[in-house]
Amino acid sequence: MITIDRTDLAFQLHDVLGVARLAEQARHTDYDREAIDGVLDTAERIAVDHFLPHAAQLDEHEPEFVDGKVEMDAAVADALKHYREAGFFGAAFDAEWGGMQMPETVRLATSFMFMMANVGTSSYPFLTTGAANLIASFGSDEQKERFLRPMVEGRFFGTMCLSEPQAGSSLTDISTTAEPREDGSYSITGRKMWISGGDQEISENIVHMVLAKIPGGPAGVKGISLFIVPKFLVGDDGAVTQRNGVVLAGLNHKMGYRGTTNTLLNFGEDSPCIGYLVGEPHHGLSYMFQMMNEARIGVGLGAVALGAAGYRASLAYARERPQGRHPDSKDPESPQVLLIEHADIRRLLLAQKAAVEGALALSLYSADLVDRIRTEEDEDSRRQNELLLDLITPIAKSWPSEYCLEANKHAIQVLGGYGYTRDYPVERLYRDNRLNPIHEGTHGIQAIDLLGRKVLQAQGAGVKTLAGRILADIREAHAAEGLAEHAEALANHLSETIATTGKLVHAVAEAPRAGLANASVYLDMLGHVVIAWMWLRQAVVAARKKSERDGDANFLDGKLAACRYFFAFELPKTSAQRALLDRLDDTTITMRPDWF
Amino acid sequence: MITIDRTDLAFQLHDVLGVARLAEQARHTDYDREAIDGVLDTAERIAVDHFLPHAAQLDEHEPEFVDGKVEMDAAVADALKHYREAGFFGAAFDAEWGGMQMPETVRLATSFMFMMANVGTSSYPFLTTGAANLIASFGSDEQKERFLRPMVEGRFFGTMCLSEPQAGSSLTDISTTAEPREDGSYSITGRKMWISGGDQEISENIVHMVLAKIPGGPAGVKGISLFIVPKFLVGDDGAVTQRNGVVLAGLNHKMGYRGTTNTLLNFGEDSPCIGYLVGEPHHGLSYMFQMMNEARIGVGLGAVALGAAGYRASLAYARERPQGRHPDSKDPESPQVLLIEHADIRRLLLAQKAAVEGALALSLYSADLVDRIRTEEDEDSRRQNELLLDLITPIAKSWPSEYCLEANKHAIQVLGGYGYTRDYPVERLYRDNRLNPIHEGTHGIQAIDLLGRKVLQAQGAGVKTLAGRILADIREAHAAEGLAEHAEALANHLSETIATTGKLVHAVAEAPRAGLANASVYLDMLGHVVIAWMWLRQAVVAARKKSERDGDANFLDGKLAACRYFFAFELPKTSAQRALLDRLDDTTITMRPDWF
Repeated sequence: MITIDRTDLAFQLHDVLGVARLAEQARHTDYDREAIDGVLDTAERIAVDHFLPHAAQLDEHEPEFVDGKVEMDAAVADALKHYREAGFFGAAFDAEWGGMQMPETVRLATSFMFMMANVGTSSYPFLTTGAANLIASFGSDEQKERFLRPMVEGRFFGTMCLSEPQAGSSLTDISTTAEPREDGSYSITGRKMWISGGDQEISENIVHMVLAKIPGGPAGVKGISLFIVPKFLVGDDGAVTQRNGVVLAGLNHKMGYRGTTNTLLNFGEDSPCIGYLVGEPHHGLSYMFQMMNEARIGVGLGAVALGAAGYRASLAYARERPQGRHPDSKDPESPQVLLIEHADIRRLLLAQKAAVEGALALSLYSADLVDRIRTEEDEDSRRQNELLLDLITPIAKSWPSEYCLEANKHAIQVLGGYGYTRDYPVERLYRDNRLNPIHEGTHGIQAIDLLGRKVLQAQGAGVKTLAGRILADIREAHAAEGLAEHAEALANHLSETIATTGKLVHAVAEAPRAGLANASVYLDMLGHVVIAWMWLRQAVVAARKKSERDGDANFLDGKLAACRYFFAFELPKTSAQRALLDRLDDTTITMRPDWF
Repeated sequence: MITIDRTDLAFQLHDVLGVARLAEQARHTDYDREAIDGVLDTAERIAVDHFLPHAAQLDEHEPEFVDGKVEMDAAVADALKHYREAGFFGAAFDAEWGGMQMPETVRLATSFMFMMANVGTSSYPFLTTGAANLIASFGSDEQKERFLRPMVEGRFFGTMCLSEPQAGSSLTDISTTAEPREDGSYSITGRKMWISGGDQEISENIVHMVLAKIPGGPAGVKGISLFIVPKFLVGDDGAVTQRNGVVLAGLNHKMGYRGTTNTLLNFGEDSPCIGYLVGEPHHGLSYMFQMMNEARIGVGLGAVALGAAGYRASLAYARERPQGRHPDSKDPESPQVLLIEHADIRRLLLAQKAAVEGALALSLYSADLVDRIRTEEDEDSRRQNELLLDLITPIAKSWPSEYCLEANKHAIQVLGGYGYTRDYPVERLYRDNRLNPIHEGTHGIQAIDLLGRKVLQAQGAGVKTLAGRILADIREAHAAEGLAEHAEALANHLSETIATTGKLVHAVAEAPRAGLANASVYLDMLGHVVIAWMWLRQAVVAARKKSERDGDANFLDGKLAACRYFFAFELPKTSAQRALLDRLDDTTITMRPDWF
């Protein structure tokens, strides 16, 4: 039932973003359009042949904790063997360390297909990539040789060890410690919670990236350092040697994402646990933040992929299943019409299409910024893109997590009673997607990150850049066939949004708690404006291609209709949100705990 | 973690609705306030002691189909034994047939507690009540003696057999047939899908209420008749005799509601299946509709109960769990604050409180209308209440199904990663509640029922009655302390809603499909206006009690704050919806299937 749609991916990558231009950059000379499409073909084939088939069974039979080890479906290891052999573990890494130097946009597009097919199995390489990125950015050459290279080769997997049982979102309260040892390494002691991929028997080794405090360092987040803690120690020759003292203490059993082991890990409890400092002491959080930004875009993309899988499954169902008649035709003898003929089913499909393709555009736009930052020579321009990427990262994480989960809810609704059973994939996708508003920072955390930090950065330069880019696209839309009304609407919403932002910046400066009280509403509101922009960008390209009779007319009409849907059904919702934000509504902070 | 809150229930039943007044009616003389509270005490005790403890294990180990029979957790039968012994199977039925003649409001309040504790186990008696209602309303005295009495006693359970594999929402397309037999009974042949409680080994017998067509009858829904089809035939002495030809063909495996068997049943496939006509031939659908209205209010109430369970669980967690610090306090050495101190956590709790208590008010208001209709002497007044109940039924079904599901989403969010695990009840409640927008008529069906039928009934008399009642409460609110602003806001939203309704009525008359294209948006919009009214009614009472220093001041302040939340965060959303409805937006119907 889940099918991968390459048409939209091609439209977004090539027609909207023009990623093949990156082949002009020294880093990406191998990635012309043909090569990109070849990479996507390979990813699609592996996703469909090796990831998709075991997705349902992996959900039904989740990994188990047996005799201190993780037992799981052998199909996971088999799928990852194919993934490894195609080189995807090293997709975006430097050739120097065995990587393929793929543009981030292209790597993201491959991830999208793997996650659509099977988010549980996909998590292992995606966590590995995140962990490897940290070593690539901040590790020593010796650490890179010992740990990064085998991760790029897909022989070692990686994890992120941030949360602890008593400190979820609040990293300042972590209590894992790192005591210096004589040889320059550290003894790690503590417990980490919610560690995805924290143990398994698939890879030769697991490289945990662990946040811990070196005793005597500054209090709070300023005293956090980053460590490499391997499951097995690695000799100078790169061979795996003895077991390190990081021990699986238990598996968490979740509503969804059941294919990914999620663990409680003990460090240094029964036997010594050795860790290696990455970069400077006490800089762990800033290193981790860089990784977290990428991880957050990845979480958003995962939400999009789950939304897309549900959209394709429910669309296929709506095109096949006869049900009832139109309200205009009351003759019970007339044949039933297909589900897709009903207005409300189309609304449910349009809502999914608008959410999924709008959010995918934002994920890819974010990746395109990463590519520009990596390859751009002009300092100012790079700085602008960095600030813009910082600003939209919480949106790229949260908006899909909210609205593609909503899309999964709609997918179930299209299938009705069948959608609620475990015989169809849509209920699983809905369960899986419920994780995304939680991990890598909840909505509430993203909201405070956006309004309490990103909006204020560099005197609001990120917001100015965002407004400038949106205005440029509004100008293009004004010139395009049939898009003037949308352009006008977005211009109005944008200018009101800027005004609201100004008020809130002032309020946050005066009293952070009161100013941030409705940060989540702000995140949601700005998210809708940004997604409307993403739709207008797509519509401009679709209108142009349509007028040039370039491409499938049905597909292009669908793009324009989905854009229209977003502007008719979604964007207008932001007005009520801005009214609430503008008056600094204090309902939530004046409500007293004992009034509940 | 799930606790039952009696304070709000008492406030709603006694202070807002004044249900004890019903003791003045001949039917309910036994139900003064003390007796009502005694019934609620008994229900609470059984819910907490016998329903709640096995809710999680029943979800984890769902009923299985073994050797043609259903095997399930023995705790279900035990819980229902206590339920039966307390007389709850006969709660609302006439004393003549062994019932307790309980007011519907009170019966609903008991259901609320049972469903909060364990929705899977609760389904068996609730389906039995629905089926028994049909016999009580339309069956012959002989049918009542043979089937209703043992259902009222809780010895026989009941089911509703409407849907078929090829016809879910579309009853006109059912193909189950009923051939007349010589003795006046019928031979039933066909397959019924999604039958909750369709088989089990708990009750002595199962009484299926089956929709089928008598050959030669009118086409479509006008040819549907209603039959009693018992699992075991029943002798003249009331004793269960031989097995009837209704056979369990399989169990459906769902995302939630796992404790309730959900079945595919075959009728008359291998052995003859005897059914007994209820009422007149070809009137089955109108009989079933009466039952469906009650069932729909019951579905809405189930959604509220699940929402309430999640709200209480997440509230308890937020009051216990330390996490982070306020944005105003950056000192990492300061102690962590409780989750409930964070503005965004309060928003998630307020959203739940506003949804759950607002929706409960609507469920109870609907039940109060049932009580008024049953006991009222004045014909005009009864007719008005009937039309109002008809009008609000799709809202009482759908609004809680949408927004209390959203509440369950928020409950998970409050618990963060813990909420996503199966160690806490909130993920189960969320899975359970996802059924409610589907069964007993999907949102889309409810929306068409509302705008295409209920709004038009009796020249819009239902809408006029609704507006009249809301305006009366607005006048009260104007006179109350601190509620003038809310009263004014609701008055404005109401008058705009009436204007929009007029436009849509006109449009539906001109072209049903176009007029009904956004019926779901109308349902959602009118639902918000109705819930705002429910909150204003509660606020009027809370303000009065507060000024009279009558009752717990914290509770009353909480009511006023939740009302304020609804008027600040929720009601304003309807403006954008009305704008879309007013312009008869045709995005969904102009989108062509091949454009997706």
